[in-house]
Amino acid sequence: MATLCRPAVAVPEHIITMEDTLDLARSIHGEHPQLDLALRLIGNTGVQTRHLVQPIEDTLKHPGLTVRNARYEMEAKARMPDVIQQALDHADLTAADIDMIVYVSCTGFMMPSMTAWLINTMGFRSETRQLPIAQLGCAGGSAAINRAHDFCTAYPQANVLIAACEFCSLLYQPTDLGVGNLLSNGLFGDALAAAVVRGDGGEGVRLAQNSSRLIPDTEEWISYAVKDTGFHFLLDKRVPGTMAVLAPAMRDMAEPHGWDIADLDFYIVHAGGPRILDDLGKYLHLPPDTFRYSRATLTERGNIASVVVFDALERFFQDGGAVHEARGLIAGFGPGITAELSLGTWATAAHAADPSTAQNTMAVELHVILPTAREGQRSDADVELA
Amino acid sequence: MATLCRPAVAVPEHIITMEDTLDLARSIHGEHPQLDLALRLIGNTGVQTRHLVQPIEDTLKHPGLTVRNARYEMEAKARMPDVIQQALDHADLTAADIDMIVYVSCTGFMMPSMTAWLINTMGFRSETRQLPIAQLGCAGGSAAINRAHDFCTAYPQANVLIAACEFCSLLYQPTDLGVGNLLSNGLFGDALAAAVVRGDGGEGVRLAQNSSRLIPDTEEWISYAVKDTGFHFLLDKRVPGTMAVLAPAMRDMAEPHGWDIADLDFYIVHAGGPRILDDLGKYLHLPPDTFRYSRATLTERGNIASVVVFDALERFFQDGGAVHEARGLIAGFGPGITAELSLGTWATAAHAADPSTAQNTMAVELHVILPTAREGQRSDADVELA
Repeated sequence: MATLCRPAVAVPEHIITMEDTLDLARSIHGEHPQLDLALRLIGNTGVQTRHLVQPIEDTLKHPGLTVRNARYEMEAKARMPDVIQQALDHADLTAADIDMIVYVSCTGFMMPSMTAWLINTMGFRSETRQLPIAQLGCAGGSAAINRAHDFCTAYPQANVLIAACEFCSLLYQPTDLGVGNLLSNGLFGDALAAAVVRGDGGEGVRLAQNSSRLIPDTEEWISYAVKDTGFHFLLDKRVPGTMAVLAPAMRDMAEPHGWDIADLDFYIVHAGGPRILDDLGKYLHLPPDTFRYSRATLTERGNIASVVVFDALERFFQDGGAVHEARGLIAGFGPGITAELSLGTWATAAHAADPSTAQNTMAVELHVILPTAREGQRSDADVELA
Repeated sequence: MATLCRPAVAVPEHIITMEDTLDLARSIHGEHPQLDLALRLIGNTGVQTRHLVQPIEDTLKHPGLTVRNARYEMEAKARMPDVIQQALDHADLTAADIDMIVYVSCTGFMMPSMTAWLINTMGFRSETRQLPIAQLGCAGGSAAINRAHDFCTAYPQANVLIAACEFCSLLYQPTDLGVGNLLSNGLFGDALAAAVVRGDGGEGVRLAQNSSRLIPDTEEWISYAVKDTGFHFLLDKRVPGTMAVLAPAMRDMAEPHGWDIADLDFYIVHAGGPRILDDLGKYLHLPPDTFRYSRATLTERGNIASVVVFDALERFFQDGGAVHEARGLIAGFGPGITAELSLGTWATAAHAADPSTAQNTMAVELHVILPTAREGQRSDADVELA
């Protein structure tokens, strides 16, 4: 049965604090009619530090998409291999053991995909399947886990490497002056992660069931405008209120597995912003420290897009994980608005080596049934920012 | 066992002939020092007609990436639903029966992905998994088939919709004047396709095994440069000689399944250019009409990127398909250089309804073994264009 092993995470060396961000907003947007609102929104994020691939002076320049995308490629190639090697080590595997690489990134575009470069550079077999995913945004990390889970369900001996690379600072658009843009400029950070899903063995989250949910008619809430100057991020003011629809959707998604979403042992949740975490706790009646790993990611690194779930999961590992068979979830949210959910149990190293356990859980997995058709739920979220 | 059902294919209404293309090359590039070579290369493609989403006058203008990508989105939304509906009809399913949508396109970028719009617009369930793939280029069609196959192997009752949308003409770059660019301008066309992979039942190609192969150190042979003006397609002069390495790779890929790649009943192959098809025939000692469907696609529509394999497969269906259990392959080639191969047998409607057959093949599928590690093969292809 597929197990998501301990992730490796890296952040770039250039640091910007909340104070720096607020000072910059004041100096760049001194004349902006909604500056006070923007400052308040940025303050409310609780993001204390973020890491950037370039010094802030360079981050604030827009040298054009040509230069920006070349920078993305250079930084990804310089920083990804170490993270991947650590993730392989965590899973006790080598590059040659990997059957598929899922590469998620929504902040740069390469063709051939980074997967080709990684295979050529790091000793992966030339037979390794390549699955680059660019267009699921912040939900990409969870989607990658779920597609890796599917792959290992199809081929129970297979191993999948997930690599996530987000340099959100390379999407800074100095001409975008909406309040949502100013907020985004203070919210997103840069980070990389990798993690292996082992078809057999491994310590971590034993993946039991995954599902996806699109919230109807919310396509424009989180989106890119693709322009001569690259990807322009658009964040609608209704996004912070998303949990009003996502929380019940998540409850429904856990139901076919017979689990109560509000009664699990661990929660690894995308930290899009503080309101997302606050509201999820509110709607599911969960105490504030339930999302402590996600909250730490947000506070120390900002919203690092598809990397968030791996960073939060790594903090859970650092904290000792859970007891064997503790039940939990991994949830990513992103454009669509799409939620990607994964339910699983904690597998400790001692039990990972137990072949009888592996066999039993595999038999269970073969009987997992796809969710049945449901009526689409209309969103009535129309909540103001802040 | 997963069956790739009859595809639906559509081409836009604006037609450009080989004569038009040669005349345009002469008038636009009259002073180009390698015009004669370019004309000869275009003539050698054998592409008689291509279809474009805009009249040729508009195709030749570059209004900037902002306008180009907006056009992509508009055209995709206008043209994709009919093709998808036809593909659903061919598979005898409705939108509500689909569990995953794989959307492949390398000629435009949208976030949220087209999958979100399709779910909102066409009555797919909000639980439908979304898998947008942008960075596998011409291999994307075959990769989509293979990932759909994997998904149905994991969930044998699932159905996957594949939608492929390629408007290559929206990547025309008037300032790119290399011979490879001039050739590309005369080679690529626009088209859309959709096809369903049914986990159970259906007439078409019963998918038995899939595999992928990256040819080492060929990343720069087929690539995009991402610039302020969008995606710039780069085609290396070594690409037409790719079959020197791809043909033996394909032989190796079929071996774990116990099949002789040169002794199959049908071949649905990406028609990147005429030399690809000629050489594949030469290296596998196959008669010229083996690739007649791919060649017809190339002649009538040009290289339509990830859509080629669906267009060629649709021609095979039109031609009556094959006898039950005839053995064949579907092969896509694209950036990387990556080959995506699928081996399968023809399933006729009569046998599709036979439950005992379905049960037997499912039992076989559960024993499919992943290809074992192989030594990477170095490419020594260094063949001139033409």
